[in-house]
Amino acid sequence: MDLEKIKDPTFLKQYSNQELEELAATIRTFLIEKLSVTGGHLGANLGVVELTLALHAVFESPKDKLLFDVGHQSYIHKILTGRTSQFDTLRQYKGLCGFPKRNESEHDIWETGHSSTSLSAAMGMAIARDMKGEDHSILPIIGDGALTGGMALEALNHIGDEKKNIIVILNDNEMSIAHNVGALHNVLGRMRSAKKYHWVKDEMEWLLKRIPAVGGRLATAAERVKDTMKYFMVPGMFFEELGYTYYGPVDGHSFDDLMENLQYAKKTDGPVLIHVMTQKGKGYHAAENDQKDKWHGVGPYKIESGEKIKPTDAPPAWSEVVSEAVRKKARTDERIAVITPAMILGSKLEKFKEEFPDRLFDVGIAEQHATTLSAGLATQGMKPFLAIYSTFLQRAYDQLVHDVCRQNLNVFFGVDRSGLVGADGETHQGVFDVSFLRSLPNMVVMMAKDENEGQHLVHTALEYNEGPIALRYARGNGLGVEMDKEFNSIPIGSWEVLKEGTHAAILTFGTTISMALEASKALEKQGIHAKVINARFIKPMDEAMLHDLMTQGVPILTVEEAILKGGFGSGVLEFVEEHKYYGQIIERMGIPDKYIEHGSVKDLYQEIGLTQEEIQNKVKEMLPKKKQRA
Amino acid sequence: MDLEKIKDPTFLKQYSNQELEELAATIRTFLIEKLSVTGGHLGANLGVVELTLALHAVFESPKDKLLFDVGHQSYIHKILTGRTSQFDTLRQYKGLCGFPKRNESEHDIWETGHSSTSLSAAMGMAIARDMKGEDHSILPIIGDGALTGGMALEALNHIGDEKKNIIVILNDNEMSIAHNVGALHNVLGRMRSAKKYHWVKDEMEWLLKRIPAVGGRLATAAERVKDTMKYFMVPGMFFEELGYTYYGPVDGHSFDDLMENLQYAKKTDGPVLIHVMTQKGKGYHAAENDQKDKWHGVGPYKIESGEKIKPTDAPPAWSEVVSEAVRKKARTDERIAVITPAMILGSKLEKFKEEFPDRLFDVGIAEQHATTLSAGLATQGMKPFLAIYSTFLQRAYDQLVHDVCRQNLNVFFGVDRSGLVGADGETHQGVFDVSFLRSLPNMVVMMAKDENEGQHLVHTALEYNEGPIALRYARGNGLGVEMDKEFNSIPIGSWEVLKEGTHAAILTFGTTISMALEASKALEKQGIHAKVINARFIKPMDEAMLHDLMTQGVPILTVEEAILKGGFGSGVLEFVEEHKYYGQIIERMGIPDKYIEHGSVKDLYQEIGLTQEEIQNKVKEMLPKKKQRA
Repeated sequence: MDLEKIKDPTFLKQYSNQELEELAATIRTFLIEKLSVTGGHLGANLGVVELTLALHAVFESPKDKLLFDVGHQSYIHKILTGRTSQFDTLRQYKGLCGFPKRNESEHDIWETGHSSTSLSAAMGMAIARDMKGEDHSILPIIGDGALTGGMALEALNHIGDEKKNIIVILNDNEMSIAHNVGALHNVLGRMRSAKKYHWVKDEMEWLLKRIPAVGGRLATAAERVKDTMKYFMVPGMFFEELGYTYYGPVDGHSFDDLMENLQYAKKTDGPVLIHVMTQKGKGYHAAENDQKDKWHGVGPYKIESGEKIKPTDAPPAWSEVVSEAVRKKARTDERIAVITPAMILGSKLEKFKEEFPDRLFDVGIAEQHATTLSAGLATQGMKPFLAIYSTFLQRAYDQLVHDVCRQNLNVFFGVDRSGLVGADGETHQGVFDVSFLRSLPNMVVMMAKDENEGQHLVHTALEYNEGPIALRYARGNGLGVEMDKEFNSIPIGSWEVLKEGTHAAILTFGTTISMALEASKALEKQGIHAKVINARFIKPMDEAMLHDLMTQGVPILTVEEAILKGGFGSGVLEFVEEHKYYGQIIERMGIPDKYIEHGSVKDLYQEIGLTQEEIQNKVKEMLPKKKQRA
Repeated sequence: MDLEKIKDPTFLKQYSNQELEELAATIRTFLIEKLSVTGGHLGANLGVVELTLALHAVFESPKDKLLFDVGHQSYIHKILTGRTSQFDTLRQYKGLCGFPKRNESEHDIWETGHSSTSLSAAMGMAIARDMKGEDHSILPIIGDGALTGGMALEALNHIGDEKKNIIVILNDNEMSIAHNVGALHNVLGRMRSAKKYHWVKDEMEWLLKRIPAVGGRLATAAERVKDTMKYFMVPGMFFEELGYTYYGPVDGHSFDDLMENLQYAKKTDGPVLIHVMTQKGKGYHAAENDQKDKWHGVGPYKIESGEKIKPTDAPPAWSEVVSEAVRKKARTDERIAVITPAMILGSKLEKFKEEFPDRLFDVGIAEQHATTLSAGLATQGMKPFLAIYSTFLQRAYDQLVHDVCRQNLNVFFGVDRSGLVGADGETHQGVFDVSFLRSLPNMVVMMAKDENEGQHLVHTALEYNEGPIALRYARGNGLGVEMDKEFNSIPIGSWEVLKEGTHAAILTFGTTISMALEASKALEKQGIHAKVINARFIKPMDEAMLHDLMTQGVPILTVEEAILKGGFGSGVLEFVEEHKYYGQIIERMGIPDKYIEHGSVKDLYQEIGLTQEEIQNKVKEMLPKKKQRA
C-alpha cells in the first residue's frame, strides 16, 4: 500500500486482520527508513504500530477522541491521518511536528509533549460530551511511565470515582523513558503475569462451590471469600478497586487480541482500562530489547548495522560536563546525593550511577516528588543535586516556592536543556526558568560561558551552603575548551568582563555569549567598542559592576535566550529603577511573548531576531547619533 | 495538668493510657477556649488529640521525625513541645504560627501549609538517614484528602518501591478540607468497614485447608487462591499491593488501639501505613458531625452556643462576589462549568452547586488535574471557570504553561486569595501570581477596583473567547459599593483614570487602589496633584494610556500587592524600555524579595512599607526638586 495515498483512517474499517498486519509491516519499514535520515522517536512508535491501527479501525476519529499522552508516539496516527508526505520534514523548522498539533490536523485534538496530561484532558472532554448530550468515545493512550506522574494519578482517582465513559489505553512497555520505577510498576508486573479473567472465572466458581458447608464464624469467612472473588479472579484488581473495568493483559502486537478488547471496551459503561503490552522498538533489530533505551529519541542512523551517525569529535554534551563534575565532587563530599525524574540517560548520569549506585535515586516521572524529596534530604544536612530539564522543572514550581526556597534549603538544581531546545519544539523550550526562578526569594541562578566555567560553577554550587542554587545549561554540547584540572570557586554574584569597550556594554550569559563576542568583534572594525560581560549570575547580579556601568552612563544591551517578560533584562531594568539611574540607555534582546515552535536552534534564532547582526544593530542604535554613523 | 509547664514530650513515656485520656481532655478544653478568642483550625486539631499524644508517647521527637502534612493540625504538637503560653498570639503578627515552623522549635522539622508534601519530604529524610547510617523513625502524618494530591501519590509510589523504613500515618477523617472525593476515597471506605487482619487470618487458613484436593487445571486455581490470600485477608490490600505493611483501621480516639499499632509499626521493617480513623471536631459539640466543615478554620466564636462572632454588616466576600456573578452568567450560558480543587466552601460555590449540581466538579486536592481538565473542557467549546487560590495555582504552573496558554484555550481562572492573606502566613500569601502569569504568552490578567467592577470583569472574562483569562481577587471582603443590575463588558487592556492629576501618576490595581486614592487626596492638600489609574488589566496593559503619560513625561509610581521581581511594575519598566522613553521617572512599590510571614494584612503592609504614607513619600521624591518642597 502506498502510505502517501492515505487521507484519513476510514479505509481501515474494511480491513481484515491479515491486511492490517501487512499495513503494519509497511509502516514499520517506512518509519525505520524515514527516521534513519531525519531522526525522531523511533522506539516508541515502533511499539504502537498495531495499537494505533487497531484504535483507528475500531473507533472513528475525530468524532471519537484519541489523546496521545506525551505524544512522541503519534507518528503512525499522523500517517493514518494524511501526513505521510511530510515525514521528510519531521521536527524541522516549519515542518511536521514530532508531537500532536491541532493546526496540523482535525485528528489531533489534544497537544502534548510533557507526560501525564491525557487523563485530565480526557476527563474534561468527557464532562463536555455529557453536558452537551453527545455520544462518542474518549481514549487517552498513556504509557506505564507517564502513569506515575502526579497529575495522571490525580486524574485516575477522579475518573474512577465519577464513572464517566472513558477508555484508558495503558500502553505498558515496561519502560518510561528508560526503565520504570515505583510500586505501581510492580503492581503492573504482577498483572502482566496473571491469567485472563474469563477462563479463570469458571474454574473459580466451580472450586468455590466445593468449599464444605460450615457454620458459625466460618460461614462469615466463606462469605468473605465470595465477596472478594474479584480480587483473585481479575488480574487488574488494582484498577478495579479504583473503579475501572479492567481488560487485559492484551498482546499489543496481536490484532486478534487488540480488536476483541477494544470492541468490548467500546460497549462497556463507565471507565475502562485496557492494559496493552507492547515492545518498544518492535520490528527493528537494533532497537528491540534496547535495555538502555538508546533508541528512544535518535538522530540519523545506518539501517543495516544500527550504527548511529554522529558528528565526529563533538565537544562533550553539557549534561555530561555537569554530571561528571558532580561525580568528581561526590568522591570527597559524602553529603552529595543525585536525584533524577526518569532522566538517567538524558542527564548523562550513567557513570555516576555506576560509581555511586547507592547515591543516585531515580524517582520516575515525578518532578514534584523529586523536588520536595530533595528538600527533605537538605533538611538533614545532605546536599542533593537534582538534575531536571528546565521545561520539566515547571512541574515543580510550587515545590520550589513552598518547600525549597521558603525553607531556604541547600538544594542544587541542575537545570538541563535551558533555553531553546530545537527539534522537540514549543512544549520543550526551556525559556521560562529565568523569569520564574529569578522571582523566588533565596534562589541563586547561574549559567556558565563554557564547560570549564561550568565545572567551576558546579563546584561553587556544591560548596554553597546558604540556600537553593540553580545552574542552567543548554541542550547540546559545550565549546570544546580545555578543562582545568582543579576546581575553582567563583564568588556568588560576580560577573566577568570578557572583552573591554567603552561605547556600550553587552550583558549576557551562557549560550548567547559567543554571538555577543562575535558582534563586538565586528563592531570593533567599525570603530565601536562594546564591552562584553559574562553575567554568569542571573541572580544575584553583580551590583558593583552595574553601578560602575551606570555611573559611567554606558549604554547597556542585555541579551538572553529566555522569555523577556520578567527575564534577566527586566532584572537590570529593576536595578536601574531601584537606584534611580534615570536616563540610563538600555535595550533588551531575548524571546518575545509567544511560544516558539520546533526547528533548529539556528532557525529559531533567526525567527526571533536573536542574532549577531541584531546585536550589532541594537548596539549601534543605542549610541549617540554621531557615533551611529561611524 | 498545667499545660504551660510542658517543656517537651518526654514525660508522656511514663503516662498510662488513663493519664493520657485525662491529658487529652485538658488539651481539648484548652483549644476550645483559646481558639474561641483567636480563631484557628479547630476541627482538624480536635480530631488528632489522641493521635498526637500517642505519637509523642511512642516515639522520640526530634530524633524521630514527625512531619505534619498541611500542618494546620499541629497545635497539640506545639503544646507538647513547650509552646502553650504562646497560644494567645496564634496566627498574629510575630506570634505563634498556625503551621509548623522550624525557627519555633527543634521539634518542627518540616514546614508545611500546602498539602501533600510530607511523604516526599519523609522519603528525602529516609534516604539521608540511611546514607548517614542513622537509626530513627520517620512519620509523615497525612490526611485522606491530602493523599489525593499528585505529589503525595508520586511519593506513595516511590516509597512503596524503595522499601525504606517510613511509617505513614494516614489520618482518615473522611474529609479533605470538606468532603473527600475520588476513587481512593471509596477504597478507603471499603477498608474502614473491613475486619482486622489478625482474626480473619486464622479462619481463612482453616477454610483453605478444607478445599478438596483436586488435580489438573483446578490445582492451578487452588494455588491461585493461596497466592492471593492476602487480598481477602488484609483490608488494606490496596496499600499492600503498593508495598506497604498495612495496620488498621485503627480507632484514632482509643489509646489502646493507637499505642498497640504504633508499637507494631515501630518494629516493622519497610514502609508501613497505619490507617487511623479520626473525627474532625471531636469533643466539641458544635464542631462534631460538621457535615459542611464550617469548623475547619474559624474566627472567634461563643463556646456555649457555637455561634460565630462576626463583624456585622460586612460587605460581601470577594469569593462570593465572583461566584455569584458566575452563577448569574451560567443561567444563560450553557458552556459554563465550574471546577474547584476541594474549595467549594472557601470559594463560596455552595449556591452554584445547589443551582447547577451537574455543572460543578470538585476534583479534590488536585490542582494540576483541575487545570488540565479545564483545558480539556475548553477544547470542546465549553467555558470552564476554575476557582483556585493564588497560592495553590502555583501547583499548576506547568499546566498553565504547557496545556492552557500554549494551546491558547478559553479557561477562566478565578485566582482567589491573591495578594497578602494575613493569618495563614508565608505558605499562603498569593504574591507570585502577577509575576508568573504575566510572563506566559496568551494570558490575560485582571484585578478589579471594587466588587461592582469585579462582576463586570467576570462577565468580560466569560464573554472573552480568545484564550485564557485570569481574574485575581483578594481574601476578605469587597468595599460595600452598590452593584449594577446589568453586566457591562470592559474592553480588554483598558485602564481607568480614577482621579486626575498632572504632577505624577500612580498606577495600581485591586486592593492597593484605596490607599493610592487616599495618598493622592492627602497630597492634594499639599498642592501636589497625583493622577490615580486603575490598572485593572495587568496584562495586556493600556498602552495608549502609557504612551500618553510618557510623552507628557509624568513621573510614574507603580503600586502592587505582589512580588516586585518580574511584577506589574517591571512590566511598566519593560514598556519604557521597548518604546525608548529614556529619562522617564518611575518608581515601584510592592513586595520585596523575601517571604512574608503571618499577621494581619495591615501589619504586613507596615512591615514592607506598602502604605499610604510611603506612596506620598515616593510621589514627592519623584517630583522636580522645587515641587518636592511644596
